[in-house]
Amino acid sequence: MAYTLVLLRHGESEWNAKNLFTGWVDVALSEKGREEAAKGGQLLVDAGVLPDVVHTSLLRRAITTAHLALDAANRHWIPVKRNWRLNERHYGALQGKDKKQTLAEFGEEQFMLWRRSYATPPPPIEEKNEFSQAGDARYADLGDDMPATECLQDVVARMLPYWESDVKPDLVAGKTVLLAAHGNSIRALVKHLDGISDDDIAGLNIPTGIPLVYELDDEFKPVVKGGKYLDPDAAAAAVAAVANQGR
Amino acid sequence: MAYTLVLLRHGESEWNAKNLFTGWVDVALSEKGREEAAKGGQLLVDAGVLPDVVHTSLLRRAITTAHLALDAANRHWIPVKRNWRLNERHYGALQGKDKKQTLAEFGEEQFMLWRRSYATPPPPIEEKNEFSQAGDARYADLGDDMPATECLQDVVARMLPYWESDVKPDLVAGKTVLLAAHGNSIRALVKHLDGISDDDIAGLNIPTGIPLVYELDDEFKPVVKGGKYLDPDAAAAAVAAVANQGR
Repeated sequence: MAYTLVLLRHGESEWNAKNLFTGWVDVALSEKGREEAAKGGQLLVDAGVLPDVVHTSLLRRAITTAHLALDAANRHWIPVKRNWRLNERHYGALQGKDKKQTLAEFGEEQFMLWRRSYATPPPPIEEKNEFSQAGDARYADLGDDMPATECLQDVVARMLPYWESDVKPDLVAGKTVLLAAHGNSIRALVKHLDGISDDDIAGLNIPTGIPLVYELDDEFKPVVKGGKYLDPDAAAAAVAAVANQGR
Repeated sequence: MAYTLVLLRHGESEWNAKNLFTGWVDVALSEKGREEAAKGGQLLVDAGVLPDVVHTSLLRRAITTAHLALDAANRHWIPVKRNWRLNERHYGALQGKDKKQTLAEFGEEQFMLWRRSYATPPPPIEEKNEFSQAGDARYADLGDDMPATECLQDVVARMLPYWESDVKPDLVAGKTVLLAAHGNSIRALVKHLDGISDDDIAGLNIPTGIPLVYELDDEFKPVVKGGKYLDPDAAAAAVAAVANQGR
């Protein structure tokens, strides 16, 4: 008995296109991002991978990606679950800032520490900052769980409880699960699944819009480490592009 | 304590535009229908009506309408529930047929009987018909509940159990419920809520894309019979247009 888990990072957002730190800021997909999402759905069809249930974050770019991909795959009617624990990493005080300017202002070392270190979060965002989500109704129930900044370690810590409570049970029920989320919430899950070290996870990039399929055994270990991209050539090209962001 | 229920009929579909009987055939929204949906979301914002949960049918035109309206209203992140019991009336052997041709072929009396009588369904559709949903995965669990045709009475009978089991509990929990559905599944619910007779329901048309808000008392009786359209002038104009379909 193998479980099938499909990870899908949202397509390009308006802020990806502008090279701004986004985090929990709820920007829309760009037109290119919408096309990526629909293409991701077509890749599911071509591979015969049919999701039975979809989990998304609470952010528009993941929600719309799921909608467009599933619509293209004729699976728009499957059950939907949404949870903040699948959100992108909260980027703290960097949210809304230009990546290139941030690199110039703080230097390569600090920039890469914020972007890629496992345990160093950016400075926390102030509640009065226009890019804070402090007063957002969708997070009203979070209480002390509401972050003001996060490092990847924090994302792992708040994502895994949802993996255990909501995603695993769907897999155990025999469902093919689509998880439509973000670069860092997906990196957090991949780190867990593939047993990647705190150091090595820095080198892992997730391309946008290309379904990443994991077959998992009874103990939720990947049958093939790293899973399988449904368009491996495009995935390799996109990973290289992501690695160059901010340059 | 009043409950707030918002009913939203999907915007124009590709087959509404072509004047074909649709029923359970899973056609997409037209561009006009997409615009109607977004406008419906803006009407929610303008009225300060903020859904806490959305219920949709399993059909693309209602699912996309909900997505676009909630995205426009910045409520895209609320929980979603989907159920076949909110589907449009199954139009039996008429599915896929031109309304005008059907009127010419069968005459005014038979045409209006199929369209508007409470208890007379069209002839059942055959499983081999290209517009049958007999083999559709999304209905695989329905068993004997799977219709081959329906009259409005049948829609009331299969919709009300979902109203009781899933919609009412959300209202009782204090949630503003958005129900994104179809002309006939909404007529079925309105008939129930407003206590409309089997004869009088024939005269009730629901416009597309305009939220219809019901405040309900403790016994789920409308505080104002017929509810309140968020754009009453547009609703009145649209109702007149719907009544002329097939002419």
